[in-house]
Amino acid sequence: MQKARRKKASQFPPEVLAVFEDIKRTRNVPDVNNFWKYLARDPALLARTWQDVKQVMAPGALDPLVKELLYVAVSVTNGCGYCIASHTAAAHKAGMTEAMFGELMAVVALANATNRLANGYRVPIDAMFEP
Amino acid sequence: MQKARRKKASQFPPEVLAVFEDIKRTRNVPDVNNFWKYLARDPALLARTWQDVKQVMAPGALDPLVKELLYVAVSVTNGCGYCIASHTAAAHKAGMTEAMFGELMAVVALANATNRLANGYRVPIDAMFEP
Amino acid sequence: MQKARRKKASQFPPEVLAVFEDIKRTRNVPDVNNFWKYLARDPALLARTWQDVKQVMAPGALDPLVKELLYVAVSVTNGCGYCIASHTAAAHKAGMTEAMFGELMAVVALANATNRLANGYRVPIDAMFEP
Amino acid sequence: MQKARRKKASQFPPEVLAVFEDIKRTRNVPDVNNFWKYLARDPALLARTWQDVKQVMAPGALDPLVKELLYVAVSVTNGCGYCIASHTAAAHKAGMTEAMFGELMAVVALANATNRLANGYRVPIDAMFEP
Amino acid sequence: MQKARRKKASQFPPEVLAVFEDIKRTRNVPDVNNFWKYLARDPALLARTWQDVKQVMAPGALDPLVKELLYVAVSVTNGCGYCIASHTAAAHKAGMTEAMFGELMAVVALANATNRLANGYRVPIDAMFEP
Amino acid sequence: MQKARRKKASQFPPEVLAVFEDIKRTRNVPDVNNFWKYLARDPALLARTWQDVKQVMAPGALDPLVKELLYVAVSVTNGCGYCIASHTAAAHKAGMTEAMFGELMAVVALANATNRLANGYRVPIDAMFEP
Repeated sequence: MQKARRKKASQFPPEVLAVFEDIKRTRNVPDVNNFWKYLARDPALLARTWQDVKQVMAPGALDPLVKELLYVAVSVTNGCGYCIASHTAAAHKAGMTEAMFGELMAVVALANATNRLANGYRVPIDAMFEP
Repeated sequence: MQKARRKKASQFPPEVLAVFEDIKRTRNVPDVNNFWKYLARDPALLARTWQDVKQVMAPGALDPLVKELLYVAVSVTNGCGYCIASHTAAAHKAGMTEAMFGELMAVVALANATNRLANGYRVPIDAMFEP
Repeated sequence: MQKARRKKASQFPPEVLAVFEDIKRTRNVPDVNNFWKYLARDPALLARTWQDVKQVMAPGALDPLVKELLYVAVSVTNGCGYCIASHTAAAHKAGMTEAMFGELMAVVALANATNRLANGYRVPIDAMFEP
Repeated sequence: MQKARRKKASQFPPEVLAVFEDIKRTRNVPDVNNFWKYLARDPALLARTWQDVKQVMAPGALDPLVKELLYVAVSVTNGCGYCIASHTAAAHKAGMTEAMFGELMAVVALANATNRLANGYRVPIDAMFEP
Repeated sequence: MQKARRKKASQFPPEVLAVFEDIKRTRNVPDVNNFWKYLARDPALLARTWQDVKQVMAPGALDPLVKELLYVAVSVTNGCGYCIASHTAAAHKAGMTEAMFGELMAVVALANATNRLANGYRVPIDAMFEP
Repeated sequence: MQKARRKKASQFPPEVLAVFEDIKRTRNVPDVNNFWKYLARDPALLARTWQDVKQVMAPGALDPLVKELLYVAVSVTNGCGYCIASHTAAAHKAGMTEAMFGELMAVVALANATNRLANGYRVPIDAMFEP
């Protein structure tokens, strides 16, 4: 079942190919990456996931580079190897420099450390931070 | 022992007060928040953590607002209540608008979802994403 | 020390072999999978873990397929590669169809996303959900 | 800003009220729970999240009770207090008995334990579990 | 159902009371803490969990203080409020000093940080660390 | 960019080489492991991380073996493959026996299980555990 990625394009159903076309057009890439080929095992999940990605990652109040940095920060925190690889590449494409990457890693490491210090010391929320 | 936060300033040792002064001066705030008062139970840990925070969160290749957004993204992913409260406040102070917050949450939610899809579908890393 | 898995059966102590036999009999399989061979480094841990697995995964108020789906959901959330591989296989053996797998992944992705939205928006628990 | 939940219905914009109506109709409940009132701070996020929840949690290859059990399993693994509270209630409503809840907790605890044993013993994936 | 903790001893079934007695005798405490009272909703889960705790936390190659420190380290990493509170208390009872607690927190924070640096920089395992 | 590890020593800037020398001297090893070679992409991050590691892991109220056990416990909980490999090796070097490793894994597995039971049963913190 996991062999889906070795399928030729002609073997995917039309509703999957339509999503693939929209991904290629939106991102201006010649092929979709493995993530989408694997999700194609469930066409409804594929379509819904792509709609979410397309809407959420579009330019808005935050620019695409910042969104990719956030994606890398979450993926590194969760330890998702595939997502770290693919979104680090996407962040570089969106303009992330080597210096930015170093600072991104530094903030992610620091936040993961201080999250645990706050847990371990059982720090009560200051009144000024309450909603 | 957890009663440290109720201490009056005069009850903290001088090396702790020196760190508190530097935090107040650097951030231009009248008092330090609970996190630092609790860490003061271990003056060496307090001093080292503040040095790390001061260096990492200073403006650099990434501006302070982006760094705070990243901090919130990690804290939300880890579910650290104190850190979510304090860094959301810090992000607002650094210029985060309501629209930015909504997009930040949307990216964090999406990344947490797709991280699991990549895990569950056991997606192999594309050759183009390999280092 | 990690070479344990390459041991021949005759090299394992009797109390380990007894556990292996019970696993094979209970599951009707010709050999135990790597997980058990590695745990055999600590015979007490092996025996206790197998007892827990045998009791917890037996049919009860929840049927074995549902229990395997839950196992996959936790393993995918934690990103444990070995457990995702072995319990996805076990779920298929227990009757998971391709359509069920797609829905399982969809629920896991959604829950991981909304868990973070609840964290980030700091949503207070409704009175009706309080115990 | 977090005061959104105290808004009267008339204070929400029409596109938010339309989502609230659809939630109430779909679930046959007199009011929406806090999660949706907080998400309403970002109407686009609210609408997209509800569409995802509505599609994913609908009956399909897995029945609604199983889906709620999976939701609880993920939320407990992540330690999301709000989601544990709301989805445990939803699971009870969908038919979860006290005995089912006990077995659900037992599987979640066991999977979280063995996930770490597989990590710590660095167990290689058996050839038969490879895709 | 969550009201179990308010039950009087006489309201618990005999097999639950037997576990409670063993906990009190083993730990030399006048009453069991809430964790056990809540687990009593599922007597089989209660009995199995207590057997595991009793065996695993007994003195062995690692002494009880080290085991409690490890318990706190895991609980802080996972952000489990109840477990942090109860096992920090247990660690103090087993001999943890204030200085030990500070160093414990420092190691936990550091490990959580460097775990993410290793993830983010995609560091390959050195040949000398391979099993 | 990820090719940094293949650099010859002469290709690293002097401030990086100075950190490498301090690591080798402090640990009495002929070369630094991959983690440090990868961090060298950001010399400031490298220097700060090494300073933290050097201070935190030095003998103190907790001895080096206990600190390494704690490091492994956190890394196993987070599922960080590189850190599990490198710190298990470090723990063995610091004196961890096979029996200690088995007990370490047993505590980590148990804590990860009971953390979720406490979450799922929504156990309130006993008054005696409150700070």
